[in-house]
Amino acid sequence: MPSCEILSIGTELLLGQILNTNSQFLSEELAAIGINCYFQTTIGDNVDRIKFAMKQALSRSDIVLITGGLGPTADDLTTECLAETLGVGMTFDAEVMQRIESFFKTRGVSMPESNRKQALRPEGSELLPNPRGTAPGALWCIGTELLRKADITNPDRERIVMTFPGVPGEMKAMWRETAVPFLTKRFGNNVVWSCDLKHYGIGESALAEKYSHLLGMSNPTVAPYAGRGECKLRVTAMAGTIAAAENLAKPIIDEIISASGTFFYGRNDDTLEVVVGRLLTERKLTIAVAESCTGGLVSKRLTDVPGSSNYVHLNVVTYANEMKEKVLGVRIETLIKDGAVSEQCVKEMAEGIRKFAAASIGLSVSGVAGPGGGTEDKPVGLVYLGLAHDQGTDVRKLMLPAHITRQEIRQRSASEALNMVRLYLLQHS
Amino acid sequence: MPSCEILSIGTELLLGQILNTNSQFLSEELAAIGINCYFQTTIGDNVDRIKFAMKQALSRSDIVLITGGLGPTADDLTTECLAETLGVGMTFDAEVMQRIESFFKTRGVSMPESNRKQALRPEGSELLPNPRGTAPGALWCIGTELLRKADITNPDRERIVMTFPGVPGEMKAMWRETAVPFLTKRFGNNVVWSCDLKHYGIGESALAEKYSHLLGMSNPTVAPYAGRGECKLRVTAMAGTIAAAENLAKPIIDEIISASGTFFYGRNDDTLEVVVGRLLTERKLTIAVAESCTGGLVSKRLTDVPGSSNYVHLNVVTYANEMKEKVLGVRIETLIKDGAVSEQCVKEMAEGIRKFAAASIGLSVSGVAGPGGGTEDKPVGLVYLGLAHDQGTDVRKLMLPAHITRQEIRQRSASEALNMVRLYLLQHS
Repeated sequence: MPSCEILSIGTELLLGQILNTNSQFLSEELAAIGINCYFQTTIGDNVDRIKFAMKQALSRSDIVLITGGLGPTADDLTTECLAETLGVGMTFDAEVMQRIESFFKTRGVSMPESNRKQALRPEGSELLPNPRGTAPGALWCIGTELLRKADITNPDRERIVMTFPGVPGEMKAMWRETAVPFLTKRFGNNVVWSCDLKHYGIGESALAEKYSHLLGMSNPTVAPYAGRGECKLRVTAMAGTIAAAENLAKPIIDEIISASGTFFYGRNDDTLEVVVGRLLTERKLTIAVAESCTGGLVSKRLTDVPGSSNYVHLNVVTYANEMKEKVLGVRIETLIKDGAVSEQCVKEMAEGIRKFAAASIGLSVSGVAGPGGGTEDKPVGLVYLGLAHDQGTDVRKLMLPAHITRQEIRQRSASEALNMVRLYLLQHS
Repeated sequence: MPSCEILSIGTELLLGQILNTNSQFLSEELAAIGINCYFQTTIGDNVDRIKFAMKQALSRSDIVLITGGLGPTADDLTTECLAETLGVGMTFDAEVMQRIESFFKTRGVSMPESNRKQALRPEGSELLPNPRGTAPGALWCIGTELLRKADITNPDRERIVMTFPGVPGEMKAMWRETAVPFLTKRFGNNVVWSCDLKHYGIGESALAEKYSHLLGMSNPTVAPYAGRGECKLRVTAMAGTIAAAENLAKPIIDEIISASGTFFYGRNDDTLEVVVGRLLTERKLTIAVAESCTGGLVSKRLTDVPGSSNYVHLNVVTYANEMKEKVLGVRIETLIKDGAVSEQCVKEMAEGIRKFAAASIGLSVSGVAGPGGGTEDKPVGLVYLGLAHDQGTDVRKLMLPAHITRQEIRQRSASEALNMVRLYLLQHS
């Protein structure tokens, strides 16, 4: 297995002005295609330190991925430092130049002279196209002779260097469209295909335990990831073609989806709100939400999905008891006797919003998000969910840990509410 | 000026399972106290690579900050690798052990034997207390003799090493409470005080230009930062005491606040929604929001603020035209003639929600968030804002760039709406 080092270049990283999301992205992607990443190194826009880090990375790793420093300004030093580290000159790519010039022309702006440097590449390297921006990268397979001349340790095996712009969107597009096919073909003559199976309602360790018999496999591989209260299993297969890799993964994916039951909710870019939207659209149903402690977050997430106006017509945030009464018809006795954070109140809220918005489904959330407002009976973290439908109204009680923040209580409550809708829709097709 | 290197230790970072926010935090903090950070290095839980990286960092930097690897498991190698790199043994801190044991005792759990290693420190180092967790760090001033024995380059000047747990909350508390006072005292016999002056409605380059005469100063320093559509100026002063540093910064802060006018909106942890909430509370006013394209985001942000239930009683998301008519009383002629995304519609929405919720201020947002739904007349990115108050209704038109995402259009629209409320409240005290 080849080893890899990620070099991030940019003084703004060393000043903490931006977060290095590129290194995380590349590391996760490398792991998925079976390439070991042993070092992530970040340096500023300084010729000596960049060259030092390049030489060190080349000496200890088979593959060096470099992000940043490909722009047109004097601070952008990646290409020239790379050429100097290997002791070669730079070639000018007239085709790239033309593309950059026409980019400026279509915008009616004249190209600054400094942009010419973006058409330069170290001699002997190839173009790594940039489908999303003007500055391309370089893909360079560096042979034994050059490595030896440049005094790189262990010069007997070839090294691969790829340069990417620091802009995450451009870097990711280049990585996916050019680097992954190249690397997977190179190391194993194979392409890689992977699929994330997203789960809700089961923790990472429970998921890992349930599928422990799959986690040790080598092709396809299965790996659990956790984050933001959710878990996913990534299934990755390598084969001669995408179709063959997909075929290899399919039985494992089918097994997981079947065994996970309703814990499994979607693939890849699916979110709970996307899946809820899909189910509502399929069933030609609409939803209306009445929120209290989540303050609009459930509504915001539902409407994050393009096209959500087809099934969301009205949501309300009834923070005040008076508004729960006036808009949703929650009975005054309920508010006095049970309080706003109660089973009875979310039941009436869900039924009220369903009626008021003339929606198929009414969803409600009421709880204590903190940090203040908790009592012994109703502590911070106590949240009720209501779901009114044509056959009645379901209510759920959540007791979230009191030590998590107001934001987390709101996020988890919103996720639980969306998941409650998902489970209801799955049971009523 | 001393130089610093940040070492992040943890295989989960190299697998991309977690994002390295610690390095960004420490880098930003170092810049604020005038310490140069030249390298950020990330390595996994591997003895050889950890020791290699430690030796390299000690050879090229005056200060080495190490995060991660202080836990109780076999993967946690930081302390022993650090001792081995410098060729010393480890001392056992009975007091720390006692604190860890009592932590488990109060939770009614017996302490796993493996936790004993958290009471170890390299011989000669001091305790770096952890106010938020069980595992403390080490603070180690390493002298010439030890550096020379351990074969560290440039052994003639002392090195400082600090170890922190990888958990961001614990690391930050330790940094602020122990490391900053130590470092500022050490390097300049001074303490550091800084204040972020947050701005809205002015870009980073315009802000930098406006205050170019301040950016070159050395004490206090003034530095611009940008992110998420906002900008801040950080003013940092060093002096013998906090009060003296604050006094040094005060004239500059006053100058900026006065010259920035309403572009300046708050300090440090203030957000637009926090400031709007403060102004509403001071003026004993309430607000109600009617959203269309932002889908609940304005409501969510307003209610992110603890105590917002005092001024938010009801918000609505009227996605469907029918609901704009039914709930807000938008006239059917307006919807037919001008459409939902129009000056007239947001005017009626703002007036409608103000009346419906009986609030002091009615705020409305309607626009085309995309990616679909744009026309030649009303392209993606066109957003109208309405603000109804006791003297009439104000309307604003935004034309956001069409190439930004649906999420960004929604975020920027929400920020503009909150800022519109802020500016209104400032003018009507």
